[in-house]
Amino acid sequence: MDRESPRGPAFPVADAVASLGRERKLRLDCGVELGPYAVGYQTYGRLAPDRNNAILICHALTGDQYVATDHPITGKPGWWIDMIGPGRPLDTDRYFVICANVLGGCMGSTGPKDIDPATGKPWGLSFPVITIGDMVRAQAMLLDHLGIDQLFCVIGGSMGGMQVLQWASAYPARVFAAICIAASARHSAQNIAFNEVGRQAIMADPEWRGGDYHSHGVKPAAGLAVARMAAHITYLSEAALHRKFGRNLQDRDQLSFGFEADFQVESYLRHQGSSFVERFDANSYLYITRAMDYFDLAAEHGGVLANAFKDTRTRYCIVSFTSDWLFPTRESKELVRALNGVAANVSFVEIETDKGHDAFLLDEPQFEATIRGFLAGAAEHRGLGR
Amino acid sequence: MDRESPRGPAFPVADAVASLGRERKLRLDCGVELGPYAVGYQTYGRLAPDRNNAILICHALTGDQYVATDHPITGKPGWWIDMIGPGRPLDTDRYFVICANVLGGCMGSTGPKDIDPATGKPWGLSFPVITIGDMVRAQAMLLDHLGIDQLFCVIGGSMGGMQVLQWASAYPARVFAAICIAASARHSAQNIAFNEVGRQAIMADPEWRGGDYHSHGVKPAAGLAVARMAAHITYLSEAALHRKFGRNLQDRDQLSFGFEADFQVESYLRHQGSSFVERFDANSYLYITRAMDYFDLAAEHGGVLANAFKDTRTRYCIVSFTSDWLFPTRESKELVRALNGVAANVSFVEIETDKGHDAFLLDEPQFEATIRGFLAGAAEHRGLGR
Repeated sequence: MDRESPRGPAFPVADAVASLGRERKLRLDCGVELGPYAVGYQTYGRLAPDRNNAILICHALTGDQYVATDHPITGKPGWWIDMIGPGRPLDTDRYFVICANVLGGCMGSTGPKDIDPATGKPWGLSFPVITIGDMVRAQAMLLDHLGIDQLFCVIGGSMGGMQVLQWASAYPARVFAAICIAASARHSAQNIAFNEVGRQAIMADPEWRGGDYHSHGVKPAAGLAVARMAAHITYLSEAALHRKFGRNLQDRDQLSFGFEADFQVESYLRHQGSSFVERFDANSYLYITRAMDYFDLAAEHGGVLANAFKDTRTRYCIVSFTSDWLFPTRESKELVRALNGVAANVSFVEIETDKGHDAFLLDEPQFEATIRGFLAGAAEHRGLGR
Repeated sequence: MDRESPRGPAFPVADAVASLGRERKLRLDCGVELGPYAVGYQTYGRLAPDRNNAILICHALTGDQYVATDHPITGKPGWWIDMIGPGRPLDTDRYFVICANVLGGCMGSTGPKDIDPATGKPWGLSFPVITIGDMVRAQAMLLDHLGIDQLFCVIGGSMGGMQVLQWASAYPARVFAAICIAASARHSAQNIAFNEVGRQAIMADPEWRGGDYHSHGVKPAAGLAVARMAAHITYLSEAALHRKFGRNLQDRDQLSFGFEADFQVESYLRHQGSSFVERFDANSYLYITRAMDYFDLAAEHGGVLANAFKDTRTRYCIVSFTSDWLFPTRESKELVRALNGVAANVSFVEIETDKGHDAFLLDEPQFEATIRGFLAGAAEHRGLGR
């Protein structure tokens, strides 16, 4: 169901929802067997006849599958539109690009806002707690459904990078190349702490109703907005905030001596909070942050990260940003050390930028060149024609 | 009203509330004339006959005057007990130490939870928005009341350090020495952003009731706890969080696959939030964070920070901590440059520690030695006998 239009992108787009887990259920890390379940996804470009040109994009906490087309709720351009298309790093003339909404999400994949078939009511907090491993298993079942044995590449930033690592570790034969951007093999104490603040903000909102707000026709918008505001600060660097806003006042010449948004940075944050609640489900925020907190690849392999990648034949590209304090370069280097420890084929690039964690979503020429170059090299090794 | 007891400290303590602004009102930066108003304070040690041995401690955002005695609500030891007493850096055998609750606070100084004499009801949000300058003017009136013309030293960390700078700038003749710890001459965009998250968390709590919760006999405990949790993360370094908690689990051997506090860091943060609301007023949190946001000493002096200290004769000690990302060393250095620009007498010490912003409240031997040494040198110059 291609939906090309005069205004649409210059490449084939499919927007679909797969119903999976009917015959074979999805066994979650918590022990629950989930099925059937839905996975909403988009694809760009065309799958090659020998099915060897697929790139899977794994999205971040608040991302979704609308990578290269306008978002159905906000109407905004896809979140990685500059990376995808003819001649762009993820070249749709060459690759078949897939992005699926994560399990637990709210954009077409089964999550806490959906109806639990067992009760006929929204899952709410009775939805099972999921992990990065569960998200990746659900994606693997989508690839089975699409008839793709091996991905040419799996790529993602932030929580997307966690999924990339999980993919390479859990399905080594299915991943030819892996690009892990601004991520880590385990969530740090500070990051767990920030996620916990966001969750507490949501759960403190009386409209959350113990997670059952969908049944009551309300939503914890104020709590979710606060969660987003706190998180958003961590996505930017102090330098970027200073450069963009400094102490500039918003729509006024002098301080108001009140609690309105005197400063541009306050106005910006409030906007980030209020626009986020229009497109995101509060319970999904709880579940997905929890999945990030639980992620610890070494712990799943006897405490030794290298064991997660034993005998790997995947080609890795690890990218970090100098001003990213949420997933600092140090954590990428730990990952590189572990990969070196198993003699993996690894490129590591630390990109100099003041844009912070979100640099992977922004116009950053050195980053684009890195992805383009790594993919070109990997494609050559994979024998993908121009 | 000394309240020494067998369990009490080994030095004279006075716990008092001054009623000020009866004859001469306090002119606030917002234009309001406030009076009468109360200032709650404690003193330790004895004022010398020539009144030249007074040290004023300025407390931080959530601090108060219970510096060296047990807190009347929590029962916990004073927040700087290790720094104050016979033989300690702020030696009570030698100095007369004063600490006053800031204007807008909730521990005895007039603030939004008090009764507005004009209406007979709690001020709530009709309390005037105050500034660091207003806090310092209120303290200056307290010194007038105590008959102290010149402070031997004014000292404080974080927002306390802002007050120290304001003191030295606004009352140059009244400050012999000034110790500014982990602070800045202006609040950064990132810090304004974190404060705004806290305020939005409070104001999102329906029990806040537009600031009028005291009239309704409720309080926005959930919102204030979230504000505290978010802020608390910024007081620690990532390294300290990792060292203290890492990914250790709380009271369990394995993940719960739920939203309880699985991790120690979550449990710790929740405790920080819930204990804070027992002792702090939510509206005070709004007003005091706003005062910090508004602080910009250069802006008040034609955009040139050095102008704030023109002709200063005060001896300065500026202290920063390597792992403090809320008030990074860079900002202390800007201050030192400005002071150097007016040929001020300045010592600058950056202390190597992984304890983050809160290092000034924790056992940090090099920090203690710095304060001790600077005060000893200043005392010699001031002609204070041993």
